Amino acid sequence: MPGTFENCIAVDAMGGDNAPIAVIDGIALSHVRHPEVRFLLFGDQALLTRHLASRPDLAEAIEVRHAPDIVSNEERASHALRSGRQSSMRFAVNSVAEGEADCIVSAGNTGALMAMARFVLKTVPGIDRPAIASFFPTERGRSVLLDLGANTDCQPENLVQFAVMGALYAKAVLGLGEPTIGLLNVGAEALKGNDVVKDAASQLRDMPLPGQFRGFVEGDDIPRGIVDVVVTDGFTGNVALKTAEGTARLYTGWLRETFRSGLLARIGYLMARNAFRDFRDRMDPRRYNGGMFVGLRGICVKSHGGMDAEGFANAIDVAIDLVRNRFNERLVAELNAFGDTDDASGVIAMPAAAKSGTS
Amino acid sequence: MPGTFENCIAVDAMGGDNAPIAVIDGIALSHVRHPEVRFLLFGDQALLTRHLASRPDLAEAIEVRHAPDIVSNEERASHALRSGRQSSMRFAVNSVAEGEADCIVSAGNTGALMAMARFVLKTVPGIDRPAIASFFPTERGRSVLLDLGANTDCQPENLVQFAVMGALYAKAVLGLGEPTIGLLNVGAEALKGNDVVKDAASQLRDMPLPGQFRGFVEGDDIPRGIVDVVVTDGFTGNVALKTAEGTARLYTGWLRETFRSGLLARIGYLMARNAFRDFRDRMDPRRYNGGMFVGLRGICVKSHGGMDAEGFANAIDVAIDLVRNRFNERLVAELNAFGDTDDASGVIAMPAAAKSGTS
Repeated sequence: MPGTFENCIAVDAMGGDNAPIAVIDGIALSHVRHPEVRFLLFGDQALLTRHLASRPDLAEAIEVRHAPDIVSNEERASHALRSGRQSSMRFAVNSVAEGEADCIVSAGNTGALMAMARFVLKTVPGIDRPAIASFFPTERGRSVLLDLGANTDCQPENLVQFAVMGALYAKAVLGLGEPTIGLLNVGAEALKGNDVVKDAASQLRDMPLPGQFRGFVEGDDIPRGIVDVVVTDGFTGNVALKTAEGTARLYTGWLRETFRSGLLARIGYLMARNAFRDFRDRMDPRRYNGGMFVGLRGICVKSHGGMDAEGFANAIDVAIDLVRNRFNERLVAELNAFGDTDDASGVIAMPAAAKSGTS
Repeated sequence: MPGTFENCIAVDAMGGDNAPIAVIDGIALSHVRHPEVRFLLFGDQALLTRHLASRPDLAEAIEVRHAPDIVSNEERASHALRSGRQSSMRFAVNSVAEGEADCIVSAGNTGALMAMARFVLKTVPGIDRPAIASFFPTERGRSVLLDLGANTDCQPENLVQFAVMGALYAKAVLGLGEPTIGLLNVGAEALKGNDVVKDAASQLRDMPLPGQFRGFVEGDDIPRGIVDVVVTDGFTGNVALKTAEGTARLYTGWLRETFRSGLLARIGYLMARNAFRDFRDRMDPRRYNGGMFVGLRGICVKSHGGMDAEGFANAIDVAIDLVRNRFNERLVAELNAFGDTDDASGVIAMPAAAKSGTS
């Protein structure tokens, strides 16, 4: 029975350390959660068809599209942009530009994906530079952090635009009404920090925003969850995210050693084991997988390269939330409200309902 | 019996959230570890004398010096510099400049302390800007991270100077022979990052260093302990340090909840309790207390404001290590070796052996 699908997601089947297995298995998990979503799977047709042979349950939902090349993780973005025109990543991006798919999900090379997405999709009018936004676990749940590495040098205007995009992201994916926004700095006082953050803060204080600007926040305020959206340049954001990941790993290693340090500790662990399931679950990086490239005329979600099926399925969830919440239309509307742009049609037309899937 | 003391430490008795109690108790702990060290204690004479009345064991080692004013935590650095000339902090800094003390330890306002130390002590020839260096717990032990917030905007030359100072710091306090040095960036590849870090990296690759330059490191490499010294600007370093602290706190909170989540978990905790002592010890921020202001003509160590006696005693330990390892003389010699400076006497003369203590 050919189904009718609500949305269509372009997937780069060859991106990521565990491709294409983790990608296909991730789609399988996602298919159970979202039977109404169709997938265009870009990659080596023979390889993918072989892997899919044992998955008749996915036949309806997945359409394989051949792409002869693969962008490697080590490839420079500029090289991938020039030489990767026949890659699974590029074809997936193209399918969004051509209106065939609503969004793209890839676990491939971040720099190459950003370069291709920016080149093919272009930025939304009013946005000078796209950013990478993602979640961060906090004492209160989850917050959005951006930029995570797309822009190592930022002007105040970039940070202001990140704040707008981050707040809309929190609305779309976290379902918040009026997200609180903080600008990352070395101190909470207005006098601290460099000229870029001070200037950005004074702009944010005086403008209408799709959220509530709370001024400066510090590094420890991120995991504390003081605000829903933490805005910073790509250099600082990248370092903060990775430092937090490394600290979590350090802590986990110490915890493991603690429980192995003696018989009583081992028994103690066995007794607390069920309780620890929750703990591990909260720390699970797969829960926070799925970074969006915000500011592009099309929805582009990056999965961490090392993710397994569950992690990849979570990245697909992020993409679906963004598509269904019409993130990009809202972004354009919001930017128009500022009067920064006179182009209201700054988004790739959403392909009405994706056609029936045949593979 | 009037003792003969090897070193003399100027202590700002009024700085920090728990002053002067934590300061005096910290000195008491330090006195047991280092009976050969003498302390000049600056602050409210009546208050300090009252607190010391019950500590005859410290009478020999502590000399109280009256200072009528206190620099508050909220005070701006520039204001403290102008109006705090009679403060305990300023008097303590002055005593180092005047050769009475070998170093200063304060748990007070960081910005004010830096401003005063810089104004009174001046920078070492060849160093444009002092930095704040401190320890970071890692999978391999401890690493040095700098700058932690003194310079929110840095030029390549500043980062290069931080690398030299950080390596000497690791030698002096961690006792390493040839510390490895990494420059914090958003990726390990030479092509990543902004112009400042790229330029700094190319300078560091080509120059003689008191350590081994290993190129770029990323945020997660800090807690991993990939290098002994991590060099970055004060904005990024401050955010990284605080993000790690916040992540550790988040993780600890989750762990606490886990152990309280049911009877079995509680019993499990009780069984593993002894093992957890080690774990808590490793995480204990007091272990990593004591940030040095490197690059000044005098040794200035900043304790975290919230520290208790044990934490303050650890900051004193850092100061003693730096004095005994002749950190500043070595720094000047190292800078001379580069040929950047023609002034070999760029350090405050070390007061030979501090005089006998009378209080």
